[in-house]
Amino acid sequence: MALWYDEVHQDSSRFGLKIESVIFTGQSKFQKVEIVETASHGRALLLDGLWMVAEADEKTYHEMLVHPALTTAPSVARVLIIGGGDGGSAREVLTHPGVEEVVMVEIDELVIDACKAHLPSIGTAWDSDRLQVLCQDGAQYVRDQPDGSFDVVLIDGADPVGPAAALFGPDFLEQCARILKPTGVFAAQAGSPTLQREEHLGLVRALREVFPVAKPYYGTVSIYPGAAWSWAYASHGTSPKTIVHERAQRIEKHTDIYNRDIHIGSFAMPNDLKRLLDEDA
Amino acid sequence: MALWYDEVHQDSSRFGLKIESVIFTGQSKFQKVEIVETASHGRALLLDGLWMVAEADEKTYHEMLVHPALTTAPSVARVLIIGGGDGGSAREVLTHPGVEEVVMVEIDELVIDACKAHLPSIGTAWDSDRLQVLCQDGAQYVRDQPDGSFDVVLIDGADPVGPAAALFGPDFLEQCARILKPTGVFAAQAGSPTLQREEHLGLVRALREVFPVAKPYYGTVSIYPGAAWSWAYASHGTSPKTIVHERAQRIEKHTDIYNRDIHIGSFAMPNDLKRLLDEDA
Repeated sequence: MALWYDEVHQDSSRFGLKIESVIFTGQSKFQKVEIVETASHGRALLLDGLWMVAEADEKTYHEMLVHPALTTAPSVARVLIIGGGDGGSAREVLTHPGVEEVVMVEIDELVIDACKAHLPSIGTAWDSDRLQVLCQDGAQYVRDQPDGSFDVVLIDGADPVGPAAALFGPDFLEQCARILKPTGVFAAQAGSPTLQREEHLGLVRALREVFPVAKPYYGTVSIYPGAAWSWAYASHGTSPKTIVHERAQRIEKHTDIYNRDIHIGSFAMPNDLKRLLDEDA
Repeated sequence: MALWYDEVHQDSSRFGLKIESVIFTGQSKFQKVEIVETASHGRALLLDGLWMVAEADEKTYHEMLVHPALTTAPSVARVLIIGGGDGGSAREVLTHPGVEEVVMVEIDELVIDACKAHLPSIGTAWDSDRLQVLCQDGAQYVRDQPDGSFDVVLIDGADPVGPAAALFGPDFLEQCARILKPTGVFAAQAGSPTLQREEHLGLVRALREVFPVAKPYYGTVSIYPGAAWSWAYASHGTSPKTIVHERAQRIEKHTDIYNRDIHIGSFAMPNDLKRLLDEDA
């Protein structure tokens, strides 16, 4: 009989993938970590039974978290990634030659170890000289950094429950704003705009309290619930629509999803969400 | 024990909704027709066990099928809808005061009857004087129409298997091009660009054989497989990006999804699909 793993959303909808084999299963002090071979999506990572990343659609997520920030920040020399234990975000950041140093702070060493061993197609940049990987609490790391020490801060966390919950709160966002350079750019995954609408809007509203510029943007990740997925862009003034074309042009040669039309289009907000955020609809 | 209805995709992924109750079930000579009350998505229609429409996200589908065509066609006086038995597309078309006559041709009378009785929140325009509903084969209807007899032709069919398969073929598309006025606009649902990639690309390529202008566009429908969904826009010359702003402005007051930013953004193609369609990526 076929083995299926279903992620159940709010006890009323579910998304399942057929499993060919279970590659790895372990329990850290934070969460259950599993890597499975799926029939349709290549290998995939689950944390506490929730789909995190799958080979077949990881680029829809990682390219959209990384490149809107990395193609608009005036400088991209120093980049911080909080979370991102599968290595996909670091890989995309490092495709930009202007990046001199990436610090990645993942709280759960077991996620990194499991992904290094069993998802090598996603984390292809672990050996980069420009990448420093720290296994510690990202919120504490951010508190410890001096003002204006990063050009880009990316939050590649899990859902706003469990170990990643602190990454959606106002205190953490204020600390992120503090450690960004004045022209720096912040981007974060921002949940499902349909099934996690309150969390999604809550993050955008919290960012607006902290940053003069704060905009959600949208795309799709087939293993995440609700069809549409979201990220949020924030800055002290840098615009998400002022693209450094030479940088974008270079990465468009290798990206599967990202290009400048997708970038600009992703910032279009559906009318219902515009109304909820009190924008002119 | 909870009752779940799962739609299985290519035997390797599945999407399920929890069912509160089964409202209607019937068998036409074309397909099995079911209407159920879901726990999360309101009432929903299934045809042969596949999710077709649900109250909670029907606007993401209907607004995107209808309004890019209806806001760019120079005239919208005569509109043809092939399929669309739930009534949602006719409802959206009729929000445009420039529409004088809508002909809707749905092959399966049982779909219309079941939706009229059990999904009244979707089909709110059945009684309009401007709407004529025919229960017959849409492909035959199109063959029987004189040249240049419609301003807009919308294909609101099911998947390219079963009774709707003919609506994806070159003969049918040529007939649609023939019955369109020279400035007319054609739009069709165009499948999942991920899970039905070959069918999606096949439809776009077939449209390009028939129409000088043929462009896919993208959005999300949470009950459809693969996260991203697609439609296709085609014409003898009218551009999908030349919006009649006065028309768009009027409908933006009531739409849940559609606005001009969403319209323009939806025509952005991910790089992988651009490369497959040999566009400049």
